[in-house]
This record gives sequence, structure tokens and C-alpha cells, in this order.
Amino acid sequence: MTRLPAFDRLVSSLEKLPGVGPKSARRLALFVLAAPAGLIDALVTSIGEARSRTISCSICHSLTESDPCAICVDPNRDTRLLAVVEEAGDVEVLERTHEFRGRYHVLGGALAPLRGIGPDDLHVTDLVNRIVPEGIEEILLATNPNVEGEATALYLARRLKGPGVKVTRLAFGLPVGAAIEFADEVTLSRSVLGRREI
Amino acid sequence: MTRLPAFDRLVSSLEKLPGVGPKSARRLALFVLAAPAGLIDALVTSIGEARSRTISCSICHSLTESDPCAICVDPNRDTRLLAVVEEAGDVEVLERTHEFRGRYHVLGGALAPLRGIGPDDLHVTDLVNRIVPEGIEEILLATNPNVEGEATALYLARRLKGPGVKVTRLAFGLPVGAAIEFADEVTLSRSVLGRREI
Repeated sequence: MTRLPAFDRLVSSLEKLPGVGPKSARRLALFVLAAPAGLIDALVTSIGEARSRTISCSICHSLTESDPCAICVDPNRDTRLLAVVEEAGDVEVLERTHEFRGRYHVLGGALAPLRGIGPDDLHVTDLVNRIVPEGIEEILLATNPNVEGEATALYLARRLKGPGVKVTRLAFGLPVGAAIEFADEVTLSRSVLGRREI
Repeated sequence: MTRLPAFDRLVSSLEKLPGVGPKSARRLALFVLAAPAGLIDALVTSIGEARSRTISCSICHSLTESDPCAICVDPNRDTRLLAVVEEAGDVEVLERTHEFRGRYHVLGGALAPLRGIGPDDLHVTDLVNRIVPEGIEEILLATNPNVEGEATALYLARRLKGPGVKVTRLAFGLPVGAAIEFADEVTLSRSVLGRREI
């Protein structure tokens, strides 16, 4: 018999969030009970508003409040350059570097044959169909530097390469600010192979 | 200029939760956008229900859905024994040990002179007023094993001790399952001082 059924239901709901285990769910639930009404009302309102206002761009599939998204319609973007990312959140991460001036295409995941995710489950056909009409000359494969992201990049490289279209991949190497001593062997190998003259 | 004001407001709201930094707030926000409506509706409903149904017990100040709480009115509890804890969440943690058969009193925090929290900001007078009418014979001080919890325990020990009332403190020592090698010096000292014949 539980003494606090409503509290326990809140803990169960919070446990379904990513990265929230039983202990942090309890801590969050106790915070939710003790917090001022204004703070919790603002949280609940922001959940509803974000869900109703944020949609997927019909061109690049990234998150937006107006369709097409601000990046797809921005005349200052280099339309010849397109970065392909796995998730909508990756667009914001790349934007923060201020190094990429092209546009984006969100795949909606990576190829994962073992989990039954093939090219038809991702926005691959849409991507292929953008190349000619948009006059794209370079496609930067910015999928994750892990097994699935690499496999996706290899698949896309084969599928997208053609006359007039260059396919590139993000550079691999030592993370800036790290020590060579702590680099894993795979990263260090890629760093040696990708060495550049200075 | 932000492209996603509603999304950014959601991230800001989530960052106000304990233990949620900017990166996990972004991850939670992306999850909230992508999750099925049923899951998010259940979360929002459980927040509202937990806040409206869960109240503070007028006797012990722990969380409850009926006042007085189930522990305070449980005839199988040893009314002579009372455990004093800092927060309502601590009651559940002690209950899970199944070792304590008395009742509880939640202080609502610990003494912290530097932050201006004195005895009048905690449920100390309520605690003193329970002793005689409830026939309490032993008060177990179960405040946290840190500076503020210890100071609170010392203060309460002085204030509560009297004829017919024994005041005890949770035992300090090595955590079960740990290695002596990794114990900090203070814990190990307390463990030596509190040694017991076997």
C-alpha cells in the first residue's frame, strides 16, 4: 500500500524522461511539490506552447515555428552548401559554431539495420530530391562520429556523389583543449591520418 | 534573434529544475517535443494532481494525501519513539529500511545561521510540544551527516533532553559494501570511535 499515490504517479511520469533515474525522479517530484505555483505553471505552459508552436520544416525537417524555417529562407545562406545531420538538435549545435554558412537537412536518425532502421525510415529521398533544384554543390555529412553515424555517412556518400556534387565529412581528430595522453587510440589514429601541414 | 522562442522558453523553464543544466534541459526539451502526446499529457496531469492532492501532515509535517498522515494515525506504530528528519523526502527513505517502527517529525530543513535559518524557521516548537502529550520516550535525531545536520542535532539534543526523554543520533561509520581503503578520514574516525563488541 502506498501512502502517496499521486506523488508516486508523478515520480513514474518523471522516470520516463531521458536521463532521469528513480532517485532524480524523486528529487524532481519533491521539487515540483515544494516549488512556487508560478514556476510550475510557467513550466507546464511552456511545455504546451513549445509542443503546439514548434513544427518540422517541410524542406529541411529541422525545428521551426514558421514553415519553411528561417534558415531555409535566409537569403544570406550559401545555397550551394548543405549539411546533413541526424537530429534536429544537431542544427542548433552546428549553428553555435558560426562556422557553417550553408543550409541543413535533418535525416531524423541514423541507419541502424539491427534495429530495423533503413534508408526509407530517414529523410533520404527528400535529400536526394533537393540537390538539383537547389543547385547544391557540396554536401557536408555531419552525422555522429560513432558506428551508426559512420555507416550512414558511407551510405549517403555512395548515394549522393555525382557530377557536380562534392560530398565531404566532418574532420576527426583530437578534441581541442584535451591532452594527447588521454585520447583514445581510434581518435588518435584518425588525427594522424588527417594531419595537415601548418 | 532566436529562431525558436517557444522552444527556448521551454529550455529555460526546464533549467530551473534541480540537477538540470543547460545541456540536459535541451535534451529534455527535444524529448518533450518528440514524445507522444499521451506521455506528455500524463506528465502534466500528474504534476497538477500531485500538487493539489499532496499536503503537509499537521502533526509531523511529512507529505500526505489525508491529514493526519497514515503514519501518525497508524495504531501499530510505537508512539514512544520519534525520528526527527530534515525533509519530507527523508521519511520515505527511512521507511524503506523497515527498521524504524516509531513515528516521524519533519523539521523542514536544518539550522544554517549563515543563510539566516534559525530554530524559528523550522518546526522545532511543534516538536517540543509533541513530547509530553504523545508520551514520547526516545527521540532519534536523523538529520543529515553534514555540518548543518550535525549542528541541528546538537541544538535539538540540548533543547529536547529532559527527564523521561532519551535523545539518540543515527550511527556513523563505514557504509556497508565499501572498502576501508576508500573511506574518508572523518568517517573512519567516527567508525573507530563508535566501535562495538561482537
